[in-house]
Order: sequence, then C-alpha cells, then structure tokens
Amino acid sequence: MEKIKAFAGIDIGGTNTVWGITDLTGKILAKSTFRTKDFPDFSKYSSELATRLLTDVEKAGVSMVGAGIGAPNANYFTGNIEKAANLSWKGVVRLREDMERKLKVPVAVTNDANAAALGEMIFGEAKGMKDFIMLTLGTGVGSGIVTDGKLVYGQTGFAGELGHVIMVPGGRECGCGREGCLETYASATGIVRTTCQLLAEMNAESSLRNLPPTELTSQIIAEAATKGDPIALEAFNFTAEMLAIAIANAVVFSSPEAIILAGGLAKAGELLTVPLQKYLDEYTMQSFKGTFRVLHSALPLSEAAILGSAALAISEYKK
Amino acid sequence: MEKIKAFAGIDIGGTNTVWGITDLTGKILAKSTFRTKDFPDFSKYSSELATRLLTDVEKAGVSMVGAGIGAPNANYFTGNIEKAANLSWKGVVRLREDMERKLKVPVAVTNDANAAALGEMIFGEAKGMKDFIMLTLGTGVGSGIVTDGKLVYGQTGFAGELGHVIMVPGGRECGCGREGCLETYASATGIVRTTCQLLAEMNAESSLRNLPPTELTSQIIAEAATKGDPIALEAFNFTAEMLAIAIANAVVFSSPEAIILAGGLAKAGELLTVPLQKYLDEYTMQSFKGTFRVLHSALPLSEAAILGSAALAISEYKK
Repeated sequence: MEKIKAFAGIDIGGTNTVWGITDLTGKILAKSTFRTKDFPDFSKYSSELATRLLTDVEKAGVSMVGAGIGAPNANYFTGNIEKAANLSWKGVVRLREDMERKLKVPVAVTNDANAAALGEMIFGEAKGMKDFIMLTLGTGVGSGIVTDGKLVYGQTGFAGELGHVIMVPGGRECGCGREGCLETYASATGIVRTTCQLLAEMNAESSLRNLPPTELTSQIIAEAATKGDPIALEAFNFTAEMLAIAIANAVVFSSPEAIILAGGLAKAGELLTVPLQKYLDEYTMQSFKGTFRVLHSALPLSEAAILGSAALAISEYKK
Repeated sequence: MEKIKAFAGIDIGGTNTVWGITDLTGKILAKSTFRTKDFPDFSKYSSELATRLLTDVEKAGVSMVGAGIGAPNANYFTGNIEKAANLSWKGVVRLREDMERKLKVPVAVTNDANAAALGEMIFGEAKGMKDFIMLTLGTGVGSGIVTDGKLVYGQTGFAGELGHVIMVPGGRECGCGREGCLETYASATGIVRTTCQLLAEMNAESSLRNLPPTELTSQIIAEAATKGDPIALEAFNFTAEMLAIAIANAVVFSSPEAIILAGGLAKAGELLTVPLQKYLDEYTMQSFKGTFRVLHSALPLSEAAILGSAALAISEYKK
C-alpha cells in the first residue's frame, strides 16, 4: 500500500521548538518538542531536529514530501534567519539550505506570523478568503498580510511587520530601536506598560497598585478588569483604541475581508473586542465600514504553530 | 497593411476629461480633452466621449483593442464609479458597462492613483519593479500599491487609500469625515493648513503674513521657502516629517523597492525631499533601511494621466 503524503510543520521559538507531522487536511499525525535553548550551536540544533523528525516520520509510516518552518526573522526568499533578537545563533543562519540537506525534502521558511496567517488560510478562520490580515498580539505584535490569495513578502521578504507601524511619534521605546510602535501599546507587554501609566495618572482604587510592575501580566489585568477594576478597564479601553486605529489604517491599505486576532492578549475576549468594535466604528473610513470582520483564531493554541508551518509546506507543495 | 494595435487612455477629472490613443510602447498617437463639467447627465457625457474617441481612432488609422479609464472612486471589480465627491453624476455610475457598449472594446476602470501606478510600472520609474508604492501629493493624497507585480485592490476594490491613514487621532478635519488623515498634512492643501498654523504659532517675520489663507498655495509657500522664509521652510519640514512617518509605516506593511512621488506638492523638489530623507533616516525601521528608494515620477504631467489609463488597458490586454 502506498504511504500517505505528509508534511512537517516546525515552529522555532526562542525557548522551545515544536514540530508535527500532518496530512494534507491538517490532521496532526505526530508531534513533539525540545528546547531550542539547549543548542547554542545551530548545526547541532538542526541535526537533532532532523534526526528526531525523521524518526517520527518513520514511526508514523508516512511519506514526508515537504517541510515548512516558522521562525523569528526567517526570510522566505533567502531561506535564512537574519538577526533574530530572541535566538542565540548569531549572524546569518542558513536554515532552509541546512534543513533541506538533512531532511532531503523541499523546505520553505518564513516568519512565525506569516506561517500563522497561512495556517488560518488553509485550516482556520480565513478558509476561502483571498484578502485578510493576521495579527498575533503576544509579547510583541506579529502580522501576516494576505492579498489576492498570497502572502505579501515585499521586495525584501520582510513585509508585514504591522507591530512596527509608528502610532505615536516620540512615544514608547520599542525593541526595534524606534519609538511609539504599535507593539509597545497593543501587545501583552504593551497593556502592562499602559496599566503602569494609568496607575500614575488615575486616582481610582485598584488591586493592581499592590503589585510591582515586573509581576503585572496581561492575564492579571484581564482578571482585574473582569472584576470591574477601573484602571484595568481603562487599560483595555486604551489598548483597543490603539489597535482600532492601526486596523483602520491597515484597512485603507489592503481592504481585507477579515482581521484575524490571535495571541495572549486576544484571549481577553470581550474585554478587548467590545471597546475595539466601538473604536472601529469611530475610526474606520466610511467606505470600508461593514466590509471587514474581526475574527478570533479558532485553532487550538498547542497546534496553531504546527499547522501554520505545515500550511506553508502544503502551499509550496501545491504550487 | 494591418492596422497597428492601439489603446485608449482616458482620465476623468472633476473639471476636465483627457484622453489619448497610444501604441503598446506608450507612444501617444493622438490626444484631446473636453470639460467634464459641461455634462451633468452621464449618458450624454459618455456618448460625447465615445463619439470623439472613435473619431480620433479612425483619423489615426489604428485598430483600438482596449480602453482604460482612471476616475475618482472608480472600482476595478464592479466597473462603476461610486460616490465620487468631485463628480456631478449622482449614485452609481455604470462606467465600464456603458463605455464597453459604446466603444465595442474591452474597458477596464480604476481610480486615478491606481492608474498612475500602472503608468509608472509600464512606462515610468517603476519599470521592472514588482513592489512599489505610488503617492500623488495633489489637492489630496492618492496612492496605488503594487505588490508582487500586481495592484492591490483588496476585497472591495478600494484598497490603496494611503491618503486616509490616520496620522493624528483627533487631528485636522478631513473631507472623508474623520480626523487627522495623511492628506490633511502631506498634500498641497495640507501644507497651506500647516502654514496657517505656523503663522499663528511662530513669531518669525514672513512674507506669507500678508496673504489671506484663501490665497495661499503650495507654490507660493515653495517660492517663499526658496527665498529662505522661516515659516515656509518649517512648513516643508513638518510636511516632510508627516510624509516620512507615513512612508515608514507603508514600508513595514509591504516592503516596496521604491516610493514614487508625483503631484503638485512633489514638484517642490529638494524643499521636500531633503527634509524627507532626514526624517526617513529617523523613522525607517532598521531592517528596511537602504531597501527602498524615493523617486519622482518622470512622466510629463500632460501625459501621465493618459499613459496611466492606457497602461491599465495594456495590462488587461496582456492578461
């Protein structure tokens, strides 16, 4: 009997590497993980990854025909990881070249947010859509932009960095070296910064005053907001306003059918989406009102990264 | 002898309609114009346009195989003009349908800024580029965005409205009904507004204090700046800063190879481009520095609109 065709989906994070093997429909046949941080040497890392993945493929009794990798600052065109702040490998890492040699199948790489967008397009909320924007509101803000059914890579391969649109010139210091980027406001860390600012500006009583800033998290702020904490509620309100302006600006750019939210901050649900809708009504240009929806990723968090990278492999395979 | 294949390029403006007939290389074989405003009835307008155009085609002895039309708020997908503030025809104008019936060749329509972008791609500064953004800094700010060799139309056909990214929430009133849009700052009218504001804020002597705001134009401000007028110079400086932030934000979105400037304000040349470059150095995200150029449209102004619309016809013909 012929073995079924399978795809590897690999997500390289600063702390952990997660991978899985899927069929064409996104059914995960096997998955596993190990610590990225244990391998300061990239060549040893990739050998370990390839060996373990190939073992899993053999055990699953499938025929791997392609692999997709999502990694910070990974470039689809060059196949390299370049200057990724959260990874310990220095300089240019020849990710695709190295993995193709070790896996002996075509490998495609892109950054994690682009992979997430492909995952939504093939398996998730964006199924059947040709124009949408994926926004992952995590520690930072990642984005993947799809127009006319294709990811926007731009001239450099690094397009789709909506976390780094400048919202407030001269605003909050950003990890990118500039100031006032979206991710300093509309991310899990951004809402912590907003809360700290509001604790200084507002006199309202708040349970959040009892915590040092280093212990504040978006989850703690969400819990306080659920209990009616005025500072926490205002923090969500302000975060939603910044996000709404950024979305309104993205909409006049590429006129998507949907904005798909994912990541830790998006899990706050209505705390974020109710004020977000209010501000979208205010900031969306008239001619685009009612032309797009804000959706939440429905892929299980534990599988989204694998499915996104596998979707990259599948979309390359189908080309 | 077989007649050469020719294309009509039509630009519908609020005041005038301009058209021309070109060959595949963009050589203009005939051109003409009449007043849009003389025809409050669209059907009479389009009949006049078709009759005159077909007469020109016959006189030129060519075989017209397609027509392209650039018009405010014209939608590539529907072929209609919808709610164009500067045109007297009310409701939905079935532009493509009507013109195809009267011209008996395939007709494609899009908005004027998109047509300008296609003109640059086929005949102008963007020849050979797959990723660039056209910005026309006129009375308003129009834009056409090309990624991977194709215009971004989005789900609605109305994508690419960079004149309406919100730069300053709660800022200047915009014609679109919102506040703080790019075109209230980085347009020919925007720099007039900036100058009025600076005349109030600054004490410096300025020849511009002798003019009522209604007589101020971007050209007068440019002339004053050339003579060293401090208010005029600061107006260009501020305009350049707003434009640089908008460009830096567009660059993280689609990572273009070039930004191509056109329109009245762009004619100010170094008055705009010298401070623009300074602010681009400040606001561009590190990973995109050196990856794009700012260029000026080199198409003769009298021909750019015709060539843009003809380029639309040609790109449809080649599909």
